Amino acid sequence: MRDLLPPEADARAWLSSRLIRCFGRWGYQRVTTPPFEVAEVIERGLDALDRRDLLRFVDPSTGEVALLRPDITPQIARIVATRLADRPAPHRLAYGASVVRQRRGRARRQRVLAQAGVECIGLAHVDADAEVVRLAASALDEVGLSKYRIELSFVALARDALDRVRPAARADVEAALLLKDAATLRSLVASEDASVARALVGAASLYGDPREVLPRARRVFGDEPALAELAQVVKRLDGLPLVVDLGEIRGMTYYTGTSFTLLADGPGEPVGSGGRYDGLMARFGAPSPATGFGIDLSNLEWALHAAGRPVTPPRDARFVVCGGSGERRERVAFDLRAAGHVAAVVPARGARPALDYARSWGYDAAVVCDARGAEVHRLSDGARKRLPRALASLGTWAR
Amino acid sequence: MRDLLPPEADARAWLSSRLIRCFGRWGYQRVTTPPFEVAEVIERGLDALDRRDLLRFVDPSTGEVALLRPDITPQIARIVATRLADRPAPHRLAYGASVVRQRRGRARRQRVLAQAGVECIGLAHVDADAEVVRLAASALDEVGLSKYRIELSFVALARDALDRVRPAARADVEAALLLKDAATLRSLVASEDASVARALVGAASLYGDPREVLPRARRVFGDEPALAELAQVVKRLDGLPLVVDLGEIRGMTYYTGTSFTLLADGPGEPVGSGGRYDGLMARFGAPSPATGFGIDLSNLEWALHAAGRPVTPPRDARFVVCGGSGERRERVAFDLRAAGHVAAVVPARGARPALDYARSWGYDAAVVCDARGAEVHRLSDGARKRLPRALASLGTWAR
Repeated sequence: MRDLLPPEADARAWLSSRLIRCFGRWGYQRVTTPPFEVAEVIERGLDALDRRDLLRFVDPSTGEVALLRPDITPQIARIVATRLADRPAPHRLAYGASVVRQRRGRARRQRVLAQAGVECIGLAHVDADAEVVRLAASALDEVGLSKYRIELSFVALARDALDRVRPAARADVEAALLLKDAATLRSLVASEDASVARALVGAASLYGDPREVLPRARRVFGDEPALAELAQVVKRLDGLPLVVDLGEIRGMTYYTGTSFTLLADGPGEPVGSGGRYDGLMARFGAPSPATGFGIDLSNLEWALHAAGRPVTPPRDARFVVCGGSGERRERVAFDLRAAGHVAAVVPARGARPALDYARSWGYDAAVVCDARGAEVHRLSDGARKRLPRALASLGTWAR
Repeated sequence: MRDLLPPEADARAWLSSRLIRCFGRWGYQRVTTPPFEVAEVIERGLDALDRRDLLRFVDPSTGEVALLRPDITPQIARIVATRLADRPAPHRLAYGASVVRQRRGRARRQRVLAQAGVECIGLAHVDADAEVVRLAASALDEVGLSKYRIELSFVALARDALDRVRPAARADVEAALLLKDAATLRSLVASEDASVARALVGAASLYGDPREVLPRARRVFGDEPALAELAQVVKRLDGLPLVVDLGEIRGMTYYTGTSFTLLADGPGEPVGSGGRYDGLMARFGAPSPATGFGIDLSNLEWALHAAGRPVTPPRDARFVVCGGSGERRERVAFDLRAAGHVAAVVPARGARPALDYARSWGYDAAVVCDARGAEVHRLSDGARKRLPRALASLGTWAR
C-alpha cells in the first residue's frame, strides 16, 4: 500500500463515508472488525488455494497463529453466528475497512486494499440478490459514477461442467474457457461426454445482453434451476446496465449462486464484486442464505477520474495567517475558524512566503496581519494582489 | 480488540470524523499510512524497551520483516522526511487510524486501539506546543466533553536527575517517584549528590496549579531553560484547565520537551496524550522540531458516556417495510429513501414480527404494505398503534 497524502487521504475517507451512508439508507448498519484475527476463524471461510498467500504471525501474548484478514466476509459471518445470533434475520451489515492481499502476476507483493461493502444474511435468494445489486448500483450513482456495467455470473454452472472433464485435460479447458476461445475448447472437449462438451463450448459465448443470452443458455445447460433463478434476478433488476457472463469461472471460492462484477472504464480491474455464498454461514454453525459485495475504493477513484468526475469532497475556504504578533495571528485564526473556515498560522513574515505555503498545501489565500489590521491575498487572483474586505467574514478585522 | 457492532461502530466512526474535521479547521490535513510496514522504519522511532512486544512477521512476498504499527508517529516522520520533504514547513498532518499495542499488567494481550491525532512538524517550540494543546482542547470541546483537565509535564527534567542516581538504587527511586512517595524517596536518595536528591524529592510534589508549581519548581531545579519554556507555554494556554506534573517520567520514549495528557472521569486511562519529540525527525534524516498528540477513541467514548454525553450521531428516521407484494415493498422503500429516510425491506408478513425486527435493529417504525396502501406503526408509541399519514413523506402512498 502506498501512503495517501493530502489531499488524496481526505478524498478517500470522504468517498468511503459517502458509500457507507448510502448503504445505511438501505438499512445496512456498520460493523468494525479487527485487522487481524485467529487464523482458524478466517481460514474457515477460505479454501486451500486462497490460504496459500496469507500473512500469518504468532501472537506472542497468546501463542496463537493470527493472520491479517484478506477478506472481511468470514469475520462478518463469525459475528452473525455469534454476537448477533439473537437478532432477527435478515442481518444487513456494512463495513469500510482494509484487507491485505497478494497481487497476482509478476510482482507478487502484498498490498493493502481499502474496501467498502455490505453483507445481507438470511434473506431469500432472489430478493437478496436483487437488493444487493440494486444497492451497489445506487452507491455508484450516489458518488457520481454514471457509466458502469454490471456483469452477472453463475460460476457454478460452467464450474460443474469443468469438474466433469477428464483431470488430464482440465487445466487446458479452463484456460481456454477463461479466454472464451470456443474453437480451442471445441477440440479439447471433443472426446468428453456430450452434455459436458455442449456446456463448455456454449458457455464460452454466453456473454452479453441477458434478453439474448438467457434463452441461448437454456439450450446449452438445459432445464437448470440456476438459470430460472438468474432470470428472476434479471427481471428484478430491470433498468440497470446488465451483462450476463455464463462463461465466468473466477470469483471467491465461496460463491454458490448469482455473483456480479461492477465494471467501469479506467482501472482495468473491477470497481467492485460480490455474490451469493450460501455455504459459508454453515461453516460457522449457523446455516443461512447470504450475499454481499465489496467496492474497491482505489479502483472506484480511478473510474471516477477516468469519467471526469474525480472525488472532490466539499471544502471550507482555507486561509494561511501570517505577520503581526503571535497574539494577533491567533486572534485572526480564531475568528476565521469560528466563521467555519480553515485557518493555519505560519511563521512567514510576508505575503510571498505565505503564498508559497498556501500553494503547496492547498490553501486559498494568505491573510497578512500587522499592527493595524490584516489583508487578504487571494491565491487564485495571483500573488500580491491586495483585497482587503474581500471576504465577508473578514470584515470585522480587515482594515 | 473487540468487534464494534451496530450502533457502536457508527458512533465510533462519527466521533473520529468529528475530531478530524476539527483538526482540519486548524490546517491539519489527513494522511493515511499502511497498517504494517518494514520493521526498520517503525523501530527507528522506538527504543529497545518499546520494541520488545511488537507484532512482527516475515512478508513472504519480499522476505522482509514487517510489523504491525504500535504508533503512527514514526510513519508520519518517514512521510515528512521523504514524500512531503519538498513542501514548506510547518507540516501539519492528521490521522485517524488503529495501532496495535500490548496491554500492560496481568493480561498482556495484544489490543487494537483506535486513535485520531495530529503531528506538527517544523514550527518553533512554544508556538507549536501551545497550538497542539489548544487544538486538543478544542477537539474535546467540539465532541461535547466539557469537563477534562490537561496535565503538562516535562519528562526530561526528573528523568535527567534519575539518570544520575547510582544504578543499583535507580529502580527503587523510579518506583517511589511514580508513586509520588516523597518520604521513601528522601531516604533512598540520602546518599546521592545534593542537587540530584533535591530534584527527585522535590519533583514528587511538583504537581498542581501551574501558578503555584512553577515558582516552586525553580527552587527545585534551579535555572533550567526547560522551566522557562514550560512557563511560556503555560502563559499561552491561559484559560485552559491546566495542571503541571513535574514528577511525571512516563510517556513515549521519544518525548524531548513539553508533553501532556488529557484526563477525564471514566476510563481510568488518559483520553489522549502527546508531546514534543525533537529527536525523531533527525533519525529519518530531516532534523526538525516536532510535536503532536493522539486521542484514544475508546477512552474518549467512555469519558463522554461518564459525563452523560454519550456519542449520538445524527440519524435519519428509520423504517422497516413489510407486507404486500415485493414490488410494492420496494416502491415504498424507494420513496422513503428518496425522502432521505432509512428503509429496510423485511419478509415479515405482519406488523408484529416487523416491529420485533425494528426493536432489535434500532428502527423507529414499521410500514405495513397491502394492496390498497401502507400503514405506519410507530415503535415509540407502542406496537400495533396505527398511524396512517402520520409522517409527511408517507403522504403520497399512505391510504
